[in-house]
Amino acid sequence: MNTSKKTLILFSGDLDRAMAAFIIANGAAAMGDEVTMFFTFWGLTILRKRAHEKAKGNGKSLLQKAFGAMLPVGPARLGLSRMNFGGLGAVMMRRVMRQQNVSTLAELVDTAREQGVKMVVCTMSMDVMGFRKDELIDGVEFAGVATYLGEADEANVNMFI
Amino acid sequence: MNTSKKTLILFSGDLDRAMAAFIIANGAAAMGDEVTMFFTFWGLTILRKRAHEKAKGNGKSLLQKAFGAMLPVGPARLGLSRMNFGGLGAVMMRRVMRQQNVSTLAELVDTAREQGVKMVVCTMSMDVMGFRKDELIDGVEFAGVATYLGEADEANVNMFI
Amino acid sequence: MNTSKKTLILFSGDLDRAMAAFIIANGAAAMGDEVTMFFTFWGLTILRKRAHEKAKGNGKSLLQKAFGAMLPVGPARLGLSRMNFGGLGAVMMRRVMRQQNVSTLAELVDTAREQGVKMVVCTMSMDVMGFRKDELIDGVEFAGVATYLGEADEANVNMFI
Repeated sequence: MNTSKKTLILFSGDLDRAMAAFIIANGAAAMGDEVTMFFTFWGLTILRKRAHEKAKGNGKSLLQKAFGAMLPVGPARLGLSRMNFGGLGAVMMRRVMRQQNVSTLAELVDTAREQGVKMVVCTMSMDVMGFRKDELIDGVEFAGVATYLGEADEANVNMFI
Repeated sequence: MNTSKKTLILFSGDLDRAMAAFIIANGAAAMGDEVTMFFTFWGLTILRKRAHEKAKGNGKSLLQKAFGAMLPVGPARLGLSRMNFGGLGAVMMRRVMRQQNVSTLAELVDTAREQGVKMVVCTMSMDVMGFRKDELIDGVEFAGVATYLGEADEANVNMFI
Repeated sequence: MNTSKKTLILFSGDLDRAMAAFIIANGAAAMGDEVTMFFTFWGLTILRKRAHEKAKGNGKSLLQKAFGAMLPVGPARLGLSRMNFGGLGAVMMRRVMRQQNVSTLAELVDTAREQGVKMVVCTMSMDVMGFRKDELIDGVEFAGVATYLGEADEANVNMFI
C-alpha cells in the first residue's frame, strides 16, 4: 500500500457523478498518482461509442436489446442524478459548465486516457447488459472483481461512486 | 491497518447497489479478507425477513408503521436505483441476471454469511425505522457509528455504497 | 498516512445521505480524529444560508439564477434520496427522527463546526452553481480537487457520499 495509487469504482451512469469521478481521477493522475477506474453496472454507459448507437443487437437477448436501446450512449447522453427533468436539467448543466469553462465529460474521458488512467470494465456487467467489447471506446480493459480488489490493495484511496 | 480487512457501509436499499456491495464483499472474503458490512438507513431493508411482512406493528409509532409498510421486505423486493419503472426494470434486471447465471441478491447474502462476512446493523437506523431485531435475518449484529469507525481503522478499503 | 484522519466528499444534497456523512464525521471527530469534509455539486446546498434565500442574483447568469431558485437552501429544506414524495417523505423522516431524539441535520452541522471538522467547498462547483461565498455559512474554506487529494493522502478512511 502506498499513497501514489488510487482506485475508483464507477457504478453510476449519471453525468454529475461521472464528472466528479473523472475530475478526481484526472486530478490524481496530474499529481503523479497511478489511477485505476473500474466501471460497473450503469457506469458502462459512459464508455459506449456513438457509432454503435443503432448497431444491430445480433446475439443479444430481447432484454439485452431493451437495455441497449434504453440506456444512454456515451458522455453526451447522460442525465443528472437529480433535477434532470427528462434531460432538460442535464442540458442546463452542460450549458452552465461550458460558460464556466469546465471541461465536458467527453473531454475529461480523453484527458484520463492521455494521462494513462487505467480503465477496467466489469465483465459480469458486460454479460448482464449484453454489450460487446466493440461497442465500448478503445483502450479499456476487461476484468472481474478479484482484479479490482487486487488493485485496491495497492492503493490508499478507494472510492465507490 | 492491514490489507486483509475491508469495510462497506451499505446505506442504499437499491437492488443494483446492494448487489455491487455483496459482490465486492464476497469477492474479498473469497480472497481471505475479513469483511464487515455496516447497514444503515435504506440498507436495512435488505435484511428484512419475509415472514414478518405482515407482522403487526406493536409498539411502533404511526410513522414507523408507515415506513414498515412502504419499504421493501428483503432482497426479492428491492427496486433499481434507475430505470426501475415501478418495479418493471427490477423484474427485467433479475431475469437478465438469471439468464447470465448471476447469483440473486438473496444468494449473495447467503454466501456472505457462509463466508463469515460480519453484518452489523446501525442501531440508530433501527430506532428511526422502528424495526425490531426479530424482523431482520438471523446472525446480524447491532452497533453504532463508533463501532464502525473502529473497524474501518483496521481496514485498508472502506466504501460508502 | 495515519489512522487519525478521515475525509469525506459530500457530493449528494439529499437529507439522508448528508445526515449519514455528518454522523460519520462527528463520530470520528468525537473519537479524536481530524476530519475534512469536501462539499461538491449538490452537497453545496447543505451549506446555503436561509438569509439569502431571496437574495438578488446580481452578476449571475440566467441559468445560475435558476439553479439558485430551484435548489434547496440549507439543511431544513433538503429532500430524501428516496420516498421523498415531493417533500412529504422528508417531513415524515424529520418527525420520526425528532421522536427518536436524533439530532437534526442543522444540529449535526453545528456540532461538526464546534468539533473542528474542516469544511472545504469545491471552487469549481461554486462557479458552476453561481453561489457567492457570502451565500454559504461562515467558517468554510474554498479549494479545488488537488487540495482534497492532498488531505486524502494523509487519511486512512476516505469516502464519497
